[in-house]
Amino acid sequence: MANSSSPTRTALKNSSFLDAALGRKPARAPVWIMRQAGRYLADYRRVRSLFPSFMDFCRSPEHVAEVTIQPVDQVGVDAAILFSDILVLLPPLGLQLEFKESRGPVIANPLRTDEAIAALPGGNLNAELEYVFEGIRRSKKALDQRVPLIGFAGGPFTVASYMVEGGSSKELARLKALMFSKPQVFAQLMSKLSTVTAEYLCEQIRQGVDAVTLMDSWAGYLSPDDYRDQVMPHTRNIVATVKKNFPSVPFIHYANGGPTLLPHVVALGVDVVGLDWRMPLAEAIRAFPNQTFQGNLDPCWLYAPPERIAAKVKEMKAVVGSRPHVFNLGHGILPDISPDHARAFVDAVHAD
Amino acid sequence: MANSSSPTRTALKNSSFLDAALGRKPARAPVWIMRQAGRYLADYRRVRSLFPSFMDFCRSPEHVAEVTIQPVDQVGVDAAILFSDILVLLPPLGLQLEFKESRGPVIANPLRTDEAIAALPGGNLNAELEYVFEGIRRSKKALDQRVPLIGFAGGPFTVASYMVEGGSSKELARLKALMFSKPQVFAQLMSKLSTVTAEYLCEQIRQGVDAVTLMDSWAGYLSPDDYRDQVMPHTRNIVATVKKNFPSVPFIHYANGGPTLLPHVVALGVDVVGLDWRMPLAEAIRAFPNQTFQGNLDPCWLYAPPERIAAKVKEMKAVVGSRPHVFNLGHGILPDISPDHARAFVDAVHAD
Repeated sequence: MANSSSPTRTALKNSSFLDAALGRKPARAPVWIMRQAGRYLADYRRVRSLFPSFMDFCRSPEHVAEVTIQPVDQVGVDAAILFSDILVLLPPLGLQLEFKESRGPVIANPLRTDEAIAALPGGNLNAELEYVFEGIRRSKKALDQRVPLIGFAGGPFTVASYMVEGGSSKELARLKALMFSKPQVFAQLMSKLSTVTAEYLCEQIRQGVDAVTLMDSWAGYLSPDDYRDQVMPHTRNIVATVKKNFPSVPFIHYANGGPTLLPHVVALGVDVVGLDWRMPLAEAIRAFPNQTFQGNLDPCWLYAPPERIAAKVKEMKAVVGSRPHVFNLGHGILPDISPDHARAFVDAVHAD
Repeated sequence: MANSSSPTRTALKNSSFLDAALGRKPARAPVWIMRQAGRYLADYRRVRSLFPSFMDFCRSPEHVAEVTIQPVDQVGVDAAILFSDILVLLPPLGLQLEFKESRGPVIANPLRTDEAIAALPGGNLNAELEYVFEGIRRSKKALDQRVPLIGFAGGPFTVASYMVEGGSSKELARLKALMFSKPQVFAQLMSKLSTVTAEYLCEQIRQGVDAVTLMDSWAGYLSPDDYRDQVMPHTRNIVATVKKNFPSVPFIHYANGGPTLLPHVVALGVDVVGLDWRMPLAEAIRAFPNQTFQGNLDPCWLYAPPERIAAKVKEMKAVVGSRPHVFNLGHGILPDISPDHARAFVDAVHAD
């Protein structure tokens, strides 16, 4: 089994992201951008247009590697993140997934009965995700040790939301109805997803990623008590499994819209806690001075003129001071942002 | 000019809501439910079906009064809230509004240029909202002093979002792009909306409502700094105008999804601060012991069996203790909630 002190990991030319993520002082402030391999880049759109469906694109390791490294070359970020989707786990779980241009992900056979949840496979589904791992190997090769590669998976609550709702949802009402009316059935679903997700993240690390992120995009729909009681135990299992096997590979947790969940997320014991823009950096640092954070500029700030972006980043750097911090947006970059503005953000982080 | 000590207000048979909202100890804990006049009630759906369009329904004072009082009779709440919509201001502002069954509100001529914003009317647009005021008068009459009537308007940031985006929006990217790239133009829009909204709320009070709520449903999309700098001054103007004219009419402010905005919202100086379920009641009370709050059960909790709802409300009541508090959900009731479960919530608040 590969581990985090393998030669490939120590030979990175730019280790500022890994240093900060592990709580060490980096050579310079590191930055990456959620959804940095995305539609705001013309070269991404060119590659995307080669495929009729989004999933076909995700399943082409050659093109995955191509778009994964684009933002390293074009925007100057200090880490690449594998181009993929949190929903790649759904087909191995038996759910028919399609991405529709207008509506986003659509699941033809969402989970609507207790029996369907009981019948879900659990354990290790990695054999059906070989295309992801091949994408990791090709991305690592294409990166040629310039910057580290981040792998990721969706948080079980977020992945469960798509499986139960059948797609994106405004209120997560079906999932939360299950959670509040049948907590045992909900727990069974979460437990299976946690095992599958932990196995998937461990294999990503074995195949070469240098850090992992758990993206619990919809956790912010929960009250802190409900998160603590019904989601946190499952996330904790994922973190425990990955950190037990790979103690020195940074684990980042990101929950969108969940500022009041922060005490619970910090208690997960991950290396880096991602913040969205609703949580003031200064407040998070004051409350948890020993936690390394990631974030958290409002993605819409990149609509501002580059000089205003630079001034805003300067403010963020003053708040962070000499602490290790992973600069990022507070959520994914929007598709109509100018790459020049993304570069202005990255350059401002790198500026003295 | 009518004022808050008019005889109609002092003759209310159930003043528990007004007492709590003004920080006095109520005879029993008061409760109302956001969107309580809504689709979860069969009698609401029956009345709704009489109208081809939602706006036609809003414009029928007779039917507005009918659905406004339904939850008082059928669910047992301690206050009625006028059946209307935060977007009724749009037609007087020159925007063509339509509610589509699948997509919600759609504006045919959204604000897309600086000139369109500069050309917006400001001041007092109440002459075009006479149908709302007639709905208030009829609702007051139908209520016959059983419980108070709450009026409302949308927060200027939220109303602006529909005007700029052209409808509901996932990221509010157009509005925030305006805010970050052209703060002066954004401020002009907010300033006009604030004046119109303050005039509208004042007239609702003159026509008979006993309390008002400002619903800033999308304020939670902002960081606290951006809220403070670009939204709060305008909201403060609305609060100041209404409270200057009607000092003893309770003013409730509700922002969905904005737990980290709380210090700023409390600083607005309103009588009641509405909380969504993401902010633990205990934490809000600890941080602002002199502020009266409203809320904040997750609306999805009403999917739980009635006995679990009752137990959860009992927990909330223990947290609140003997403080004045306005019980409510943390957001609007969902259309597929059983009225029995809504009643279980209300009964649990009223139980000793």
